Amino acid sequence: MQLNSLQQQINFIREIDKIKHIQRKTRLINSDRPENDAEHSWHLAVMALVLAEHSKVPVDVLKVVKMVLIHDIVEIDAGDTFIYDLTKNHVNTADEFKAAQRIFGMLPPAQAEELIATWVEFEAGETPEAKFARAMDRLEPLLQNVSNNGGTWREFEVDYDRVFEKKKVIGEGSESLWEFAKALLDESVEKGILSKKE
Amino acid sequence: MQLNSLQQQINFIREIDKIKHIQRKTRLINSDRPENDAEHSWHLAVMALVLAEHSKVPVDVLKVVKMVLIHDIVEIDAGDTFIYDLTKNHVNTADEFKAAQRIFGMLPPAQAEELIATWVEFEAGETPEAKFARAMDRLEPLLQNVSNNGGTWREFEVDYDRVFEKKKVIGEGSESLWEFAKALLDESVEKGILSKKE
Repeated sequence: MQLNSLQQQINFIREIDKIKHIQRKTRLINSDRPENDAEHSWHLAVMALVLAEHSKVPVDVLKVVKMVLIHDIVEIDAGDTFIYDLTKNHVNTADEFKAAQRIFGMLPPAQAEELIATWVEFEAGETPEAKFARAMDRLEPLLQNVSNNGGTWREFEVDYDRVFEKKKVIGEGSESLWEFAKALLDESVEKGILSKKE
Repeated sequence: MQLNSLQQQINFIREIDKIKHIQRKTRLINSDRPENDAEHSWHLAVMALVLAEHSKVPVDVLKVVKMVLIHDIVEIDAGDTFIYDLTKNHVNTADEFKAAQRIFGMLPPAQAEELIATWVEFEAGETPEAKFARAMDRLEPLLQNVSNNGGTWREFEVDYDRVFEKKKVIGEGSESLWEFAKALLDESVEKGILSKKE
């Protein structure tokens, strides 16, 4: 059966409902409940709208929003990988690329191509939009962990150096947000919710 | 204490995390679990990106996405009102307006004004962007109820005429989506998951 474009789009819209069931490790602000990918993506999108002025270089805000809205859709097939998991590769795995092709591939061809390209651009992290989008992706769990007394840092014994290494990405997208993030990390060490080797 | 703009923005970003705890009546696709406002807003935003070509008139997609991303933030203070609740007023209550002023008011003044105006425009439903955004807001729970054997229609004994009346808003934003929606309602009646008076 040949589906018309609208039917293809509706099938895609139904399919992506599944990311509401994909749990992240990080918990909601002041809460024990793990965040899911849809909530996370929504939060990053509003952050991008509100924080766009802090980008190092002017960005196409719609493109940034698009990136953060769709960046985790591949996890429907590939699952969530915890950022501090040392046993897994975080860079654009073959599974994720296959997932992007299957899921975005449900859309009419031109739209599928556009969203795959947008996702690939986000993952590569090289354009100003991708850098800013990735800064949002690193900043949100930082706010969550600080609100939860160290959250996943303490739960999985992740120390300052490893957190700093991952959060550095914020600095590629925004100087002021990176200054803010570093100050939060320092405060967290002072408060004893993030451990730092002497 | 005078907060700088970035600190105001961060406080807003922390505050809106609360919509992840606000439950709607409608349940996720093929699921018993009620959807929350963050998941709902995320879904509408992706729908707006994917379905924009179906708008009656060309729309500023970023504006539509902004509207759907923020439209439920007022519910942090005002709570969710079920669309088929006959005892409550759904139009822009004083409580919602107060909530918009408090929550968006956490942002730097120019940004607060812009987001309040965007929310008011969405609620008024008069501009092409607001009409298309509202069409998304009506279409998503339709897909969910159909997937759940009638969902809230059966749970709260809402019949075809009342559903039709609420869904008509889709037709103001898009002819093709309204045709699609009407066909889904007719199929639902045929399947016996939506009751219709003779």
